[in-house]
Amino acid sequence: MNLDAAMAVALEQAEKVKGTTYPNPPVGAVILDADGEIAGVGATEPPGGPHAEVLALRRAGERAAGGTAVVTLEPCNHVGRTPPCVDALLAAGVANVAFAVADPNPVAAGGAARLSASGVRVTPGVCADAAAGGPLREWLHKQRTGMPHVTWKFATSVDGRSAAADGSSQWITSEAARADVHRRRAAADAIVVGTGTVFVDDPALTARLPDGTLANRQPLRVVVGMREISPDATILNDDSRTMVIRTRDPREVIQALSDRTDVLLEGGPTLAGAFLRAGVIDRILAYVAPILLGGPISAVDDVGVLSIAQAQRWRFDATLPLGPDVLLSLIPA
Amino acid sequence: MNLDAAMAVALEQAEKVKGTTYPNPPVGAVILDADGEIAGVGATEPPGGPHAEVLALRRAGERAAGGTAVVTLEPCNHVGRTPPCVDALLAAGVANVAFAVADPNPVAAGGAARLSASGVRVTPGVCADAAAGGPLREWLHKQRTGMPHVTWKFATSVDGRSAAADGSSQWITSEAARADVHRRRAAADAIVVGTGTVFVDDPALTARLPDGTLANRQPLRVVVGMREISPDATILNDDSRTMVIRTRDPREVIQALSDRTDVLLEGGPTLAGAFLRAGVIDRILAYVAPILLGGPISAVDDVGVLSIAQAQRWRFDATLPLGPDVLLSLIPA
Repeated sequence: MNLDAAMAVALEQAEKVKGTTYPNPPVGAVILDADGEIAGVGATEPPGGPHAEVLALRRAGERAAGGTAVVTLEPCNHVGRTPPCVDALLAAGVANVAFAVADPNPVAAGGAARLSASGVRVTPGVCADAAAGGPLREWLHKQRTGMPHVTWKFATSVDGRSAAADGSSQWITSEAARADVHRRRAAADAIVVGTGTVFVDDPALTARLPDGTLANRQPLRVVVGMREISPDATILNDDSRTMVIRTRDPREVIQALSDRTDVLLEGGPTLAGAFLRAGVIDRILAYVAPILLGGPISAVDDVGVLSIAQAQRWRFDATLPLGPDVLLSLIPA
Repeated sequence: MNLDAAMAVALEQAEKVKGTTYPNPPVGAVILDADGEIAGVGATEPPGGPHAEVLALRRAGERAAGGTAVVTLEPCNHVGRTPPCVDALLAAGVANVAFAVADPNPVAAGGAARLSASGVRVTPGVCADAAAGGPLREWLHKQRTGMPHVTWKFATSVDGRSAAADGSSQWITSEAARADVHRRRAAADAIVVGTGTVFVDDPALTARLPDGTLANRQPLRVVVGMREISPDATILNDDSRTMVIRTRDPREVIQALSDRTDVLLEGGPTLAGAFLRAGVIDRILAYVAPILLGGPISAVDDVGVLSIAQAQRWRFDATLPLGPDVLLSLIPA
């Protein structure tokens, strides 16, 4: 198996544990034996548990000797709650290490250099974009900025409406699209809505499995705004924790969530507009249904743009069919 | 070369002449010799000129004998302005004929049966969906309904706006997207806008090549509405012909264009809404730019939907990247 194919497997492993590892990065690893066959795979366990490389080496056993470790992030070189992964790779006698993204964290970095100095052949940058834009995106953003990565998610008709004229919106998108949202909720650290959404939709904002039961992991629910919400609001039930932030300023919201990594904004037209005007959105996920609604209720209202020259410019980084719908993913241009 | 691959070539041929053949169908043909190699290709010439099969046979010459004709539409069996294609195929001695779509026109049909009766092996339905949804779509619609096929095309931001708050809209989409629109204009029979668009944008509504010069073929320009447009409006210049229809009723517009096959609606929010409410749109092309505009100007206003249960339901039949933009194509669900 070549490095790209092995890295694809490592990326799948990383994607599976996304959300369960913070503040550690969600990493995937594959050990190829000397013949290039997969001898073991692993993904980071929750904080305190072993890192991806260690698990993959454990599964590979003696087949790791003379083989290749393929890891989505540069193996760490520091003692945290667990010993350095570099030590484990050297002890197992791997001959090659390939990784996608260099560790930007100065405390953990230096793994590649130490491996090289110990005679291991190191190949950096394998599928780097797929890793940095995929499972590591939110964690890398947090490392760079110290702030959580914010994804604005909205469901919309082809003509940009988030509800019909009478306010009804259940459901614009298909079961397949909604299942994708619940999967992303389960991987997120926090979901943010405005008091307006609580008043109009009274959502639970939980992550649910396709059978309707609660996912194992529930994100923090965050309600933003100056209005008082009812003590009977569903969002205050016991399915997860809920934080109420009495502000209209998106920067204050992000600041209050600065210990988080992956924040999902599910706000309505007003809150989404405020976040976009404040420039604190790092990704947009538009779940577009093949329907037309017309009428006055758009997915977002004022984004601070008066003329076309001032348009907020983004870049499509993925277009994905989801059942009858299409998911458009955008990142800053 | 297998039949699917040969049909792909025939479909390309057909796509190239789309718009130049009406009222005849835009057809492509490939002749494979007895060894399965391409011996000739052809596409329908403008009315009065030879059909695709005849051109392809002419180019194949003696190599057609014992070979295979691969045609996007069932070869015709009637004398119109040209003799039946079936006669030409039999005269050339082809052993096999494969086609995509059966001819729905009772006058021209019967070609497959006559070929079979003459000992030719006939394979119908090769890439039928690609032909019926592709180059033949508008012509087949016309055959079935007697009315032109109407495509509503609009450019939009990800949040469903067709202009910024101050009305500026040049340009929402990229050069690549606009080139695609001009290509479709050149293939269309007529382009329809409302008087509102003429007042606001004063468009030329011509089909232009990427270098800015006029395409060889210009669609009829149609202005719809009750208001008087200025005699100085650009749409009245000499680059193409222009028809003014004084009505607000989309059905009257379609009726007035009943001799046409492929009509492109480029109307603004009001006219597009009227056509959608009247149910006379057969395809939607949304050119989506990765920008956000917000504000009051949506691509379409009232589509006659009050609640989500009444949503106009369509189906995505293609998603195509065009430079930085994405083209979403929808057909009725």
